Amino acid sequence: MNVRPSKAPAPPEQSADPNQRFGKPEGGWREELYEVIFESHTRKGQIFDLVLIGAIVLSVVTVVLTSIESVAKSYGHWLFISEWIFTFLFTVEYIGRLLCVRRPDRYARSFFGIIDLMSVVPSYVSLFIPGSHVLLDVRILRLLRIFRILKLTQYIQEYGMLGNALLASRRKILIFLSVVFMIVFLLGTVMYVVEGPQHGFTSIPTAVYWAIATVTTVGFGDLVPKTDIGRAIASFMMLLGWGILAVPTGIISSEITHQRGMRALTGRVCTRCHAPGHEAGARFCKACGEALPQEMH
Amino acid sequence: MNVRPSKAPAPPEQSADPNQRFGKPEGGWREELYEVIFESHTRKGQIFDLVLIGAIVLSVVTVVLTSIESVAKSYGHWLFISEWIFTFLFTVEYIGRLLCVRRPDRYARSFFGIIDLMSVVPSYVSLFIPGSHVLLDVRILRLLRIFRILKLTQYIQEYGMLGNALLASRRKILIFLSVVFMIVFLLGTVMYVVEGPQHGFTSIPTAVYWAIATVTTVGFGDLVPKTDIGRAIASFMMLLGWGILAVPTGIISSEITHQRGMRALTGRVCTRCHAPGHEAGARFCKACGEALPQEMH
Amino acid sequence: MNVRPSKAPAPPEQSADPNQRFGKPEGGWREELYEVIFESHTRKGQIFDLVLIGAIVLSVVTVVLTSIESVAKSYGHWLFISEWIFTFLFTVEYIGRLLCVRRPDRYARSFFGIIDLMSVVPSYVSLFIPGSHVLLDVRILRLLRIFRILKLTQYIQEYGMLGNALLASRRKILIFLSVVFMIVFLLGTVMYVVEGPQHGFTSIPTAVYWAIATVTTVGFGDLVPKTDIGRAIASFMMLLGWGILAVPTGIISSEITHQRGMRALTGRVCTRCHAPGHEAGARFCKACGEALPQEMH
Amino acid sequence: MNVRPSKAPAPPEQSADPNQRFGKPEGGWREELYEVIFESHTRKGQIFDLVLIGAIVLSVVTVVLTSIESVAKSYGHWLFISEWIFTFLFTVEYIGRLLCVRRPDRYARSFFGIIDLMSVVPSYVSLFIPGSHVLLDVRILRLLRIFRILKLTQYIQEYGMLGNALLASRRKILIFLSVVFMIVFLLGTVMYVVEGPQHGFTSIPTAVYWAIATVTTVGFGDLVPKTDIGRAIASFMMLLGWGILAVPTGIISSEITHQRGMRALTGRVCTRCHAPGHEAGARFCKACGEALPQEMH
Repeated sequence: MNVRPSKAPAPPEQSADPNQRFGKPEGGWREELYEVIFESHTRKGQIFDLVLIGAIVLSVVTVVLTSIESVAKSYGHWLFISEWIFTFLFTVEYIGRLLCVRRPDRYARSFFGIIDLMSVVPSYVSLFIPGSHVLLDVRILRLLRIFRILKLTQYIQEYGMLGNALLASRRKILIFLSVVFMIVFLLGTVMYVVEGPQHGFTSIPTAVYWAIATVTTVGFGDLVPKTDIGRAIASFMMLLGWGILAVPTGIISSEITHQRGMRALTGRVCTRCHAPGHEAGARFCKACGEALPQEMH
Repeated sequence: MNVRPSKAPAPPEQSADPNQRFGKPEGGWREELYEVIFESHTRKGQIFDLVLIGAIVLSVVTVVLTSIESVAKSYGHWLFISEWIFTFLFTVEYIGRLLCVRRPDRYARSFFGIIDLMSVVPSYVSLFIPGSHVLLDVRILRLLRIFRILKLTQYIQEYGMLGNALLASRRKILIFLSVVFMIVFLLGTVMYVVEGPQHGFTSIPTAVYWAIATVTTVGFGDLVPKTDIGRAIASFMMLLGWGILAVPTGIISSEITHQRGMRALTGRVCTRCHAPGHEAGARFCKACGEALPQEMH
Repeated sequence: MNVRPSKAPAPPEQSADPNQRFGKPEGGWREELYEVIFESHTRKGQIFDLVLIGAIVLSVVTVVLTSIESVAKSYGHWLFISEWIFTFLFTVEYIGRLLCVRRPDRYARSFFGIIDLMSVVPSYVSLFIPGSHVLLDVRILRLLRIFRILKLTQYIQEYGMLGNALLASRRKILIFLSVVFMIVFLLGTVMYVVEGPQHGFTSIPTAVYWAIATVTTVGFGDLVPKTDIGRAIASFMMLLGWGILAVPTGIISSEITHQRGMRALTGRVCTRCHAPGHEAGARFCKACGEALPQEMH
Repeated sequence: MNVRPSKAPAPPEQSADPNQRFGKPEGGWREELYEVIFESHTRKGQIFDLVLIGAIVLSVVTVVLTSIESVAKSYGHWLFISEWIFTFLFTVEYIGRLLCVRRPDRYARSFFGIIDLMSVVPSYVSLFIPGSHVLLDVRILRLLRIFRILKLTQYIQEYGMLGNALLASRRKILIFLSVVFMIVFLLGTVMYVVEGPQHGFTSIPTAVYWAIATVTTVGFGDLVPKTDIGRAIASFMMLLGWGILAVPTGIISSEITHQRGMRALTGRVCTRCHAPGHEAGARFCKACGEALPQEMH
């Protein structure tokens, strides 16, 4: 990690291990279970994580396969069985998590606590209401856990940088989106008036949906202007959308460049005179000539 | 807010409260009414703003619902009634605004004065010409007022920065658009010659509409080249459009980065010698060594 | 214009007035005619330019209107007449240009000389081969002359900057396009094998056309994958195209930022010590304290 | 080429001539053959390279023409013959390459060794399994050899810069793609639930394919939402995709700007004191005042 001067403006703190706040029990089988389920520095914990990730991936594949009619017809029985095996496994895991933490209420209301619950509830609900089992896909969110097991701590800096860039730009993006929304709303209504229901623009919401598809350059083609005026307005909208696409890109691009610059400038301090702001590539303090700490990437 | 040195090159001034120029009356019921309608620092003024925003949103929803045939059939009567209630409300508001300012002519010709008028006129016109009531959507422009009530003064800097970036780039964008227009005009005509009316390219304007949809990567698919030469030209146009999309993005991106740099350079002044232009990350005045004020974000 | 230090790396020279190289005659009616046709600092020359631009715009409108069947049926006679009036005017202008320059061969082979010739030849050719008159659209290239008359010299710096950014990036863009072409060629062939003629991918060129439309995110929808493998490959191509779209944008964006920086750094020199490289916003020489020349934008 | 200081942080090394590692034989016909086939500084070697490139381009054209039904019908016989001529030529070339290197096993397992083998194997295989000869297109990868013969070493720096920018951003892009994949997977499943098989969303993979086409703004239009909720979700996805398109662009853009800056800083050394790290536009050494070498572009 970069050595950061204590007084320089620090980037927002990375969140600590979220599991810590559930409370690790001291002693007994609960501590042992906690170490297996919530931590990954023991051999058992790593095996547990790998098995869990495998089960998550396989259960998602099961759900996907069930949605393909031809597969569902041929192997429906096996998919049904494996579905219930995974549901049983995840139920056991969920109960295990609830049992071994000191604050089960905190866990149950945490992000992953809710995801864990949502990954088993639909199966049980589907006993009563058929069709809801596709919601099992929320299990894919549990794939976020792979970030933990793959020891991707080295990825966090980049992830945080991306997040910071988006966060720092959120006001500009909000302003930008509100302007875009007004444009598509007004232009969609104009198209509703110009083209009318006879050309597929059956209501203002439909016309706004078309306007969004046009301005964002998606252009499905299910609705298209058929009148000359409509085509002229559409041409204007396409050029407009093409042009304003540059705005969010410019915002994010400038933000990432800025964050990179901030990191470069605040990343290292001289160990003797504590002078900050050394250029990337500099090897000696520009103030006192002391050798600078090694750069990290 | 950032402290700005008085002599440093200042960014273009944010427009002051536009209402000031209509003239605030002194004393009497007109001043009271002015404070309620035009200002938002009194309790009554805040309540008025909130009610107005609610009415605007609801009236827009009414217009949207009226455009959906199934809803219009079932609830047409209620939509008709609420439409006239909103029209009555906005008429009263408009007359109130005209009455309480010292320069009603200035207000009537201002941007929001015209919007306010346009939000009531279509309803009255629709008594004579049915169908024009969809123009009521201009009321959404009145939603711009929410920027005032939400006290989004903190948003203004970013909004102004976006506007400045677009403004500073307007020449380049104009040049760019003129080049793009010539390209689509010439290539559209070529496609009209190559594909011809039998493949849907019925006229040069239609072919130009197709060329714009292709170069901007919208690609509706209502018109597509069917000949081999047409497909080759279309392939060239797609790659071209994809490539030149980079140009406006580059322009805006560079402009935003530049403006950010300008702001960084002029953002802080030394509290002792008043020297401006300190780099982001600098902690001491480069002129006299005094500690600089903390950076704001 | 910016004052540029003579030794600093200068940006590529703007091309001088291209007409100079045709040779201005000295004395007589030819010099007078030359001043009217080729120059715009006399009153007659300005009127000539305005009339010419008007004629160009109207002749282009005539061609466009002729391509619209309903208009051509109703007003075909008038369009035919005006077409020949414009052809006569442009013929006279072309002969006039040839007569009044000292080097008519140079003019005839110059860019605008060829454009001027091409704007009249199709009409005469159409006497023999009907249908070729749509080529008259090349006249729109003559609209480039408006840059001259509008005295858009102030635009040239931005135009040149754009051109320089593209020129400086041409190697990278060439490399990039060659990579893109290989990708679409290989993936198009794969799709031709996977989907085959029964799903519309009738030949490798057709499949490459589809691949270009997919990678550039145009997505006409006239050809779509119907097999599961084809859809998987298409999904991969869409994400790929979306990702590599960032590359040309990044190239251009970085180039424009660089050129702006170059201009800022080399744009002003101290009038006393000739030190270059003053930051935007600096008012005094950072080396000797002399007041710097005013910044230009 | 730029002069680079030996101690400054060097950009990643360009890979040396890959052929070197196959071992050049010393003396005899093998060395002569090696010089013709693998090197291009002799006259024979250049002729061999040009003939090879011609054969590659023509053989690719042959494959493309064979895929066009009308051409295949008329000229099938000639295409068949030329196909076998090229196959024979490439077979001879492949055997020649194997014979003249000291480490034929290394060559056979190298990238171009595999490509060379793949460019002849399909023809022989097609004797047994008709249809597989379209795989001959891998020969286009052999076009990469033109980079060698055209002595495009000057292109390498830009090519390497692009590659470095992508390489340096690979973590961020991986993180980004994993986020995008989760979004399209979840939203695709939601659309599968909302729209269902009756509107063409026949399975989760199909819905994910649609979601990717929507988020990347391709928008084929073969599948489109028909319900109001589906259209609302699609609108959200289009705006989302449009917005997050800015992220990879920002990453690459910032990376290219950074790499350019790195190159600028390390590009020149003082001829007297050998100090590196001079800014673009600097004309004198910042350490000793000696005039710096001219900047290269």
